[in-house]
Amino acid sequence: MSGVWGKNIQYSIFGESHGKAIGINMSGLPSGIPLDLEFIKSEMARRAPGKDELSTPRAEKDEFEIISGYFNGYTTGTPLCALIWNSNKLSKDYDKLKTVMRPGHADYTGYLKYSGFNDYRGGGHFSGRLTAPLVFAGAIAKQFLNEKGIIIGSHICQIGTIKDTLFDAVNLCSEQLNELHKSNFPVIAAEKAAAMKELILNAKEDRDSIGGVVEAAIINLPPKLGSPFFDSIESQLAHLLFSIPGIKGVEFGAGFEISKMRGSEANDQLYIDKGIVKTYTNNSGGILGGITNGMPVIFRAAFKPTSSIGKPQNTVDIEANDNVEIQVTGRHDPCIVQRALPVVEAAAAMAIFDIMKGQIQ
Amino acid sequence: MSGVWGKNIQYSIFGESHGKAIGINMSGLPSGIPLDLEFIKSEMARRAPGKDELSTPRAEKDEFEIISGYFNGYTTGTPLCALIWNSNKLSKDYDKLKTVMRPGHADYTGYLKYSGFNDYRGGGHFSGRLTAPLVFAGAIAKQFLNEKGIIIGSHICQIGTIKDTLFDAVNLCSEQLNELHKSNFPVIAAEKAAAMKELILNAKEDRDSIGGVVEAAIINLPPKLGSPFFDSIESQLAHLLFSIPGIKGVEFGAGFEISKMRGSEANDQLYIDKGIVKTYTNNSGGILGGITNGMPVIFRAAFKPTSSIGKPQNTVDIEANDNVEIQVTGRHDPCIVQRALPVVEAAAAMAIFDIMKGQIQ
Amino acid sequence: MSGVWGKNIQYSIFGESHGKAIGINMSGLPSGIPLDLEFIKSEMARRAPGKDELSTPRAEKDEFEIISGYFNGYTTGTPLCALIWNSNKLSKDYDKLKTVMRPGHADYTGYLKYSGFNDYRGGGHFSGRLTAPLVFAGAIAKQFLNEKGIIIGSHICQIGTIKDTLFDAVNLCSEQLNELHKSNFPVIAAEKAAAMKELILNAKEDRDSIGGVVEAAIINLPPKLGSPFFDSIESQLAHLLFSIPGIKGVEFGAGFEISKMRGSEANDQLYIDKGIVKTYTNNSGGILGGITNGMPVIFRAAFKPTSSIGKPQNTVDIEANDNVEIQVTGRHDPCIVQRALPVVEAAAAMAIFDIMKGQIQ
Amino acid sequence: MSGVWGKNIQYSIFGESHGKAIGINMSGLPSGIPLDLEFIKSEMARRAPGKDELSTPRAEKDEFEIISGYFNGYTTGTPLCALIWNSNKLSKDYDKLKTVMRPGHADYTGYLKYSGFNDYRGGGHFSGRLTAPLVFAGAIAKQFLNEKGIIIGSHICQIGTIKDTLFDAVNLCSEQLNELHKSNFPVIAAEKAAAMKELILNAKEDRDSIGGVVEAAIINLPPKLGSPFFDSIESQLAHLLFSIPGIKGVEFGAGFEISKMRGSEANDQLYIDKGIVKTYTNNSGGILGGITNGMPVIFRAAFKPTSSIGKPQNTVDIEANDNVEIQVTGRHDPCIVQRALPVVEAAAAMAIFDIMKGQIQ
Repeated sequence: MSGVWGKNIQYSIFGESHGKAIGINMSGLPSGIPLDLEFIKSEMARRAPGKDELSTPRAEKDEFEIISGYFNGYTTGTPLCALIWNSNKLSKDYDKLKTVMRPGHADYTGYLKYSGFNDYRGGGHFSGRLTAPLVFAGAIAKQFLNEKGIIIGSHICQIGTIKDTLFDAVNLCSEQLNELHKSNFPVIAAEKAAAMKELILNAKEDRDSIGGVVEAAIINLPPKLGSPFFDSIESQLAHLLFSIPGIKGVEFGAGFEISKMRGSEANDQLYIDKGIVKTYTNNSGGILGGITNGMPVIFRAAFKPTSSIGKPQNTVDIEANDNVEIQVTGRHDPCIVQRALPVVEAAAAMAIFDIMKGQIQ
Repeated sequence: MSGVWGKNIQYSIFGESHGKAIGINMSGLPSGIPLDLEFIKSEMARRAPGKDELSTPRAEKDEFEIISGYFNGYTTGTPLCALIWNSNKLSKDYDKLKTVMRPGHADYTGYLKYSGFNDYRGGGHFSGRLTAPLVFAGAIAKQFLNEKGIIIGSHICQIGTIKDTLFDAVNLCSEQLNELHKSNFPVIAAEKAAAMKELILNAKEDRDSIGGVVEAAIINLPPKLGSPFFDSIESQLAHLLFSIPGIKGVEFGAGFEISKMRGSEANDQLYIDKGIVKTYTNNSGGILGGITNGMPVIFRAAFKPTSSIGKPQNTVDIEANDNVEIQVTGRHDPCIVQRALPVVEAAAAMAIFDIMKGQIQ
Repeated sequence: MSGVWGKNIQYSIFGESHGKAIGINMSGLPSGIPLDLEFIKSEMARRAPGKDELSTPRAEKDEFEIISGYFNGYTTGTPLCALIWNSNKLSKDYDKLKTVMRPGHADYTGYLKYSGFNDYRGGGHFSGRLTAPLVFAGAIAKQFLNEKGIIIGSHICQIGTIKDTLFDAVNLCSEQLNELHKSNFPVIAAEKAAAMKELILNAKEDRDSIGGVVEAAIINLPPKLGSPFFDSIESQLAHLLFSIPGIKGVEFGAGFEISKMRGSEANDQLYIDKGIVKTYTNNSGGILGGITNGMPVIFRAAFKPTSSIGKPQNTVDIEANDNVEIQVTGRHDPCIVQRALPVVEAAAAMAIFDIMKGQIQ
Repeated sequence: MSGVWGKNIQYSIFGESHGKAIGINMSGLPSGIPLDLEFIKSEMARRAPGKDELSTPRAEKDEFEIISGYFNGYTTGTPLCALIWNSNKLSKDYDKLKTVMRPGHADYTGYLKYSGFNDYRGGGHFSGRLTAPLVFAGAIAKQFLNEKGIIIGSHICQIGTIKDTLFDAVNLCSEQLNELHKSNFPVIAAEKAAAMKELILNAKEDRDSIGGVVEAAIINLPPKLGSPFFDSIESQLAHLLFSIPGIKGVEFGAGFEISKMRGSEANDQLYIDKGIVKTYTNNSGGILGGITNGMPVIFRAAFKPTSSIGKPQNTVDIEANDNVEIQVTGRHDPCIVQRALPVVEAAAAMAIFDIMKGQIQ
């Protein structure tokens, strides 16, 4: 029942796609952080729609307004609340959808849970637009982590069946992550980008959509973060990641592939390199017993294809209590994966920020 | 930092593999549940070691002793604490491992996090043995859910590269789940069992181990459970699942496969069947917007191969600050997947029990 | 570290006295509550400053703007965030106080905790102005409770040494509470009001302030609310009450007086009246073992005199690291007790709303 | 619904007065604390019954058994669970009370809340005996705090109407607290002890009981602990204190007396003494804006007289649904205040331990 997450930094999300504004309140921030507003804007721009033919033409600038907790250029340490006003609302588009449940969306479950009182316009609180406040919070978290040398990065590791090269989980360096960060369509194997884009545009032409996978990494994390059992690093990262609309799978290190291995292959053998304990491989994704070991934390998140598609689909009219056909018009992304990268990174940054605030001060 | 999980039922786990006892305290249980002690015992027997040649010869009966919260055959509603005494302890086996970090285990991260004060014998608090209290709590949760008609079941869906048939996510019935529950080595495609067992025994012969995947299902769940964002059903199930030692991946519904689909294939189209809204397919795994839709909830968890193997491995002696070779002797499971089924089911039961206690009373 | 409270309804407060706005985000609200905006306004008007000579001349209308979670006149069930814009800000008044710590205020502790980065203007986040969002949230909670017949009321039970008659804890009725609710200066013994007001005005004339006590009651509460130990009704009410700036004592039922009694006097003896179990007396304040028994819940909260006074006081200049004299100018309340009644009621309503949402649905 | 408290150290309490054992699980303890078992025993002995004619003759040694989280003399950092076995149980005493609700006890509210399934023997989970695990946890917390120079002490500041001298809130020193700690009946004004004891023995002779007040202090606390609003030091201390059976009032600093003061008297004026900011008075009890200021934290808790008295009282038989008379036989304390001192100190230590673990590491 909760729109609040975090033990040490408490993130409270609110808002609906076509309401006045969406936003987030962050309680527990350290004081004295000189916010880099330009960095926050650039992170939000990475997620913002309407940039190119690969994404929805809904053009939202996603400008944020900090309401509290920020004074003379620094965080005060008291709750920081930020709003993102909804400017480009075309609510009429959605009026006819009030009782017709879009397949793949939360229309039906939202209708049930809230007894029909939920704001159905554009998915309301379930909208992917609610990831904008996550990116805002994540940008602040990233700034905190960056100052400690911790870098979070990601790439499109799969669109449909086309796969990018995976991260080198042992030798991953900040240069590569920074390079990927600059790209609008970040892939490791540059030659894969064109085929991936073609797949997206093909789907678009067909009034359809396509899914994909994001691979992310956190490097330079101190060891000792996390706990056995209920607050394992995997538990906390997965908790936040599965809050992001559209994610249906999360795996760490070798992930599902590790299930095919023998122990002698899967175990990351250790050695000492100039006084630092390292592992030859990194199948564990930098986490053992729920705790970081100092190697890169690597994970992947599987995104389903955008639920809004122009093709006719079977569904129900919940008030008429009857089967109907639906064709979702309006402005949609043929693929959300490339826009989801900053969201995945933000969720990871939010989680690590919370954990570090509790463990290392 | 937390050994406590749950909002409405609070599970507090404690204990070390070779300490006096392991156990769990459950706060927030409903009063008046007539505990089915035989059922709890049978669930714990499913997980218990030493049953056959596929698992470790450490023979623990895993008998539990309820300390509180249980009176005249019923739960009192006040905290129920149960202990499982450690009877078959061979601590000497582990003395030499005090400073030599076993690859794949949490020895190194535990050493760091607890500054060397952790109980290193048999992995201490990180031991897979700590899943016994989870199965205890899960059995109570299951009893509660069963009374509402909700059934949780699972099968071995993969050992190494050998894959079982997946659940029919649309037409899954209690008969199938009950049938699987009776088996020591539950698979859907019976002919796969022999090959899987062979793979395990081969690994055993080679003093090695092998990983696998568990697929689980929850049927007859009421719709409306869960929330958008931070308390999505996926978030809460994944949080608990990733607390189980050895799990490196979790996926719901079509999971990672959904990322290869187009929206027109991935979207579960809806229809009304005798007044009930259903979907033709169930790629979403019964969850949309973080909320159950009444269809079966399906998920898979990837287990890494057992970390303890008899083969020589490279590692470090943390006190000698040097590279060493290790050969882990003692009693190990060549594969934990078949023993993990009740643990995965227990985690799911614990999570759903907590969620239902908060939403439906 | 937390600006968030509540298990079932999560209240997240934010804002500073002289920032852009103050506000609150409420997560976990039931859907379908037709908000009575006029009632919310009237509750906020009870707290609002500038009404008469007994309170500060800072005239804030305390108009709220609902940002989310409210659609077509009903709560949606998704987080409801409301802002109260700060309109009447005279920040210059406070510039000279930046480093001079006002006695009785949180200036010094805030400076330390936030390393000088806190918004010092008007007390910033520590300001009594932050009680406005509490009254907003409390009004929604009250509406929910009122629909179940539960009424929360209060009176000024003490100003300085002048004491009002206490509630009749056994026979307290809604008529009396409703009558008190209408008054700007609610007392039970009407004749005490004049003397109390005189005390306040005398303090004002002397550029001083005066303290007092609020007595509050919650009637028609169902029995069974609350828990033994950590979630006792007293624990939860006191937790929220002690969040209100200026409260230094909280007592339930006979409170500190019960410590002077013998058991034979203090014990509330029971009897059955038309099938309902009642008590002859109500020294326990309607709570036994942390759980409501169906009798009125009665409590009192002691407020210190307003910290801002015009008289010269000794203090320190934290940057000059020296002793200085201060005379707090600006707009102050000579007494906050009469304005605190709706805040105390709001805190009680917020707590009971949270508890009931968890227990009774 | 919660038997768990704490954000950074999570305390999970369990057990019933006449069940197998009572206990507590502590999650989040630092590793490497060499537990002073003798100190824990001595703290538990302070609370233990049966020591003299002032308390109940139920002789329980309150010996604890640590089950987990303790290895080779040090805390491991993983959950520490301790049991206190119930040895001296006379359950038959209580059988006749199964349906007759003892006035002043939680019999009726417990019966309602748990639908009659609660363990009614000796109050079950509501028993004052459950404060033994609190003292155990408090002793560990105290050891942690003592190492940082922080000392918690208390005295009987009132029995019935006889009042002890209050602490000097400004000049309170460790010598005085240590002196009080040694006494079985700690008062500041030694001459008051005899009259207080006489009052208790008089009540005992009359088969009655008497209430009282405990005053406690925490000295050498670092400033900056706590937060504005929902995690104020007062909120957190009061939350735990009101969990202790029998407490009906809690006040900080001047407490209810501050409500009679003018601001010019109540405000604690500041000055710099050798570079340290101090206050001339300490009416705030060392807490401003919910945050410690470095002065002693002072608070008082009002205890009701023991509910169990031998005098005849009116009550109800809940199953017979009729009015009856009850005379509570068995072993009772005529006054619990002198045994409550270590419990009050333990609650304070537990709360401060939790807060410091989160803020200072």
